[in-house]
Amino acid sequence: MKETTLKQIAETLGISITTVSKALKNYPDVSAKTRNAVLELAKNLQYTPNSFAVNLRTKESRTIGLIIPEVVHHFFSNVINGIIAEAEKQGYLVIILQSNESMELEKKQVELLLNKRVDGIIISLSNESNGDEHIKEIMRREIPFVQFDKIAKLIPSSKVIINDQKAAFEATEHLIKKGCKKIAHIRGPVNPQNAIDRFLGYKKALEQNQIPFDSKLVYTCQNVTFEEGKTFAKQILADHPDVDGIFAITDLVAVGVLAHCNEVNVPIPQQIKIIGFSNWFMSQVITPKLSTVDQPSYEMGAKSFELLLEEMNARKDGKPFTPRTVELSTSIIERESSK
Amino acid sequence: MKETTLKQIAETLGISITTVSKALKNYPDVSAKTRNAVLELAKNLQYTPNSFAVNLRTKESRTIGLIIPEVVHHFFSNVINGIIAEAEKQGYLVIILQSNESMELEKKQVELLLNKRVDGIIISLSNESNGDEHIKEIMRREIPFVQFDKIAKLIPSSKVIINDQKAAFEATEHLIKKGCKKIAHIRGPVNPQNAIDRFLGYKKALEQNQIPFDSKLVYTCQNVTFEEGKTFAKQILADHPDVDGIFAITDLVAVGVLAHCNEVNVPIPQQIKIIGFSNWFMSQVITPKLSTVDQPSYEMGAKSFELLLEEMNARKDGKPFTPRTVELSTSIIERESSK
Repeated sequence: MKETTLKQIAETLGISITTVSKALKNYPDVSAKTRNAVLELAKNLQYTPNSFAVNLRTKESRTIGLIIPEVVHHFFSNVINGIIAEAEKQGYLVIILQSNESMELEKKQVELLLNKRVDGIIISLSNESNGDEHIKEIMRREIPFVQFDKIAKLIPSSKVIINDQKAAFEATEHLIKKGCKKIAHIRGPVNPQNAIDRFLGYKKALEQNQIPFDSKLVYTCQNVTFEEGKTFAKQILADHPDVDGIFAITDLVAVGVLAHCNEVNVPIPQQIKIIGFSNWFMSQVITPKLSTVDQPSYEMGAKSFELLLEEMNARKDGKPFTPRTVELSTSIIERESSK
Repeated sequence: MKETTLKQIAETLGISITTVSKALKNYPDVSAKTRNAVLELAKNLQYTPNSFAVNLRTKESRTIGLIIPEVVHHFFSNVINGIIAEAEKQGYLVIILQSNESMELEKKQVELLLNKRVDGIIISLSNESNGDEHIKEIMRREIPFVQFDKIAKLIPSSKVIINDQKAAFEATEHLIKKGCKKIAHIRGPVNPQNAIDRFLGYKKALEQNQIPFDSKLVYTCQNVTFEEGKTFAKQILADHPDVDGIFAITDLVAVGVLAHCNEVNVPIPQQIKIIGFSNWFMSQVITPKLSTVDQPSYEMGAKSFELLLEEMNARKDGKPFTPRTVELSTSIIERESSK
């Protein structure tokens, strides 16, 4: 890497490094003639100030860290989009790490970001995590910190969430209003708060509509994949041939359910009505089109950065900061799969 | 941010900062007793070395920059996945910027990364770019640099590509072998090399199979979207009702074509056979399932980082580096839309 340094400029002009540095910063105690000579040479040599050096003075890296479970994921890639768009507007760069839903990896990544002295951290937790030591460590160090979507409830950081329980309640009630009487739920893994809340919303909707809850109708994903959707659809049809509604934890799983039903010629929505969650792009292009819960993913990213910026600015100014939780609203999108 | 510094450790123990620093690095001229005291206190205070400070000495940031046109895009999100997985194995962090297919933004982002003194840069160019000044500037500064997918051919950096012309030739020939005699092509924008090459591959396949090329059968996308696919499908059906094959620049556009054909009850593949490009996930879940060209996106990311690492290591050791171009292979995936 060929880089022009202050030293080179100083040597070329036969002046001190301090004078070069002052000239570049427009200090008044440097003569106009010297300043102009420095500026011209700096321009010709394509000098750029070393931003890592700048960090040592301002203690700012203008870089934040983002840890998410998966990049190749409609919801998360939209969140990333929202975060980097907002960060860029404010002159911040974003380092993105992917935990692959592994707590071990997530731990290592938090450590990396802390060592890197990023100005702030945004996380959506892996399915294995829930407010463990590495998350507490971020709080202990008083690094600006925002959790979104998959959060550890008890960690008192800022948070951007949706009301998963309410959204799942509405999704389940949507199926009930459409006439479903025996509704299965394909839920997420045991740990993540959003999987728990969506399950509770499903359960509550049944109870408030006088449909007895039956734990045998609940199937638990390990990896929340298309393949699991197909496998559970097959199993549901075998275990409970009279199931007339399925609420899946996310569209990817729901699309797996649809794919299996299409393969074995189970008519959707006539025999079984299906609703997913998150409004993935493909849900509107498959046959039949999938009903789902619209989750504002881009806004979730943008809002997460906004809260982080608030905290970074407060801490920079030495002001107290009280974490905030922002809840974004969701809505039901009715398409062919639940008509 | 509460951070433990060398100064704090030095003051607490009543020794010099230099001694603390030497103790932490295991220098032999520090007594075992002092070293142990420093290490223990550093551990208790959860001291982490300031990696930005380290940068000044080693001149390494262990951070690379990645500029891509879009994050919410099946192909690019898979590439990101490949890059960050490989980078992490080697202890590098990845700053991700999104150009939104705008040269203006891409320029600004290159400047940002250069100012940030990243150790290397990986780019897939925006549709508006083609080896312009900001790209030449990366070369001039001798920053390790890899281009992938959408490249500026004449910039002599390392490159990871597929043979777009050959892949498009095979896709078009696949339709010909299936009996298509009048094949339309929905191509990408005028600028990007891969759009040009895919168009040339389409043209060559027609010519080598004695089908006269007709420029009226070529439709040009502005934004390469699902909506454009729908719009062009409508237009093709109106302009050339006897078209029996369509080759689209990417699956997203091909899925738009399929969606329109489904809406107006044009039977696929009976009336028109369709093939896309890139093998997006949704292509295997829509009805009918879409034939496509499999493009190794994860490998493209992994290989890009590998080439970048080669160059970063060579430059670090002061060794000469000759840029390499790696061409990954593609294959046709036949599904229902071209049966």
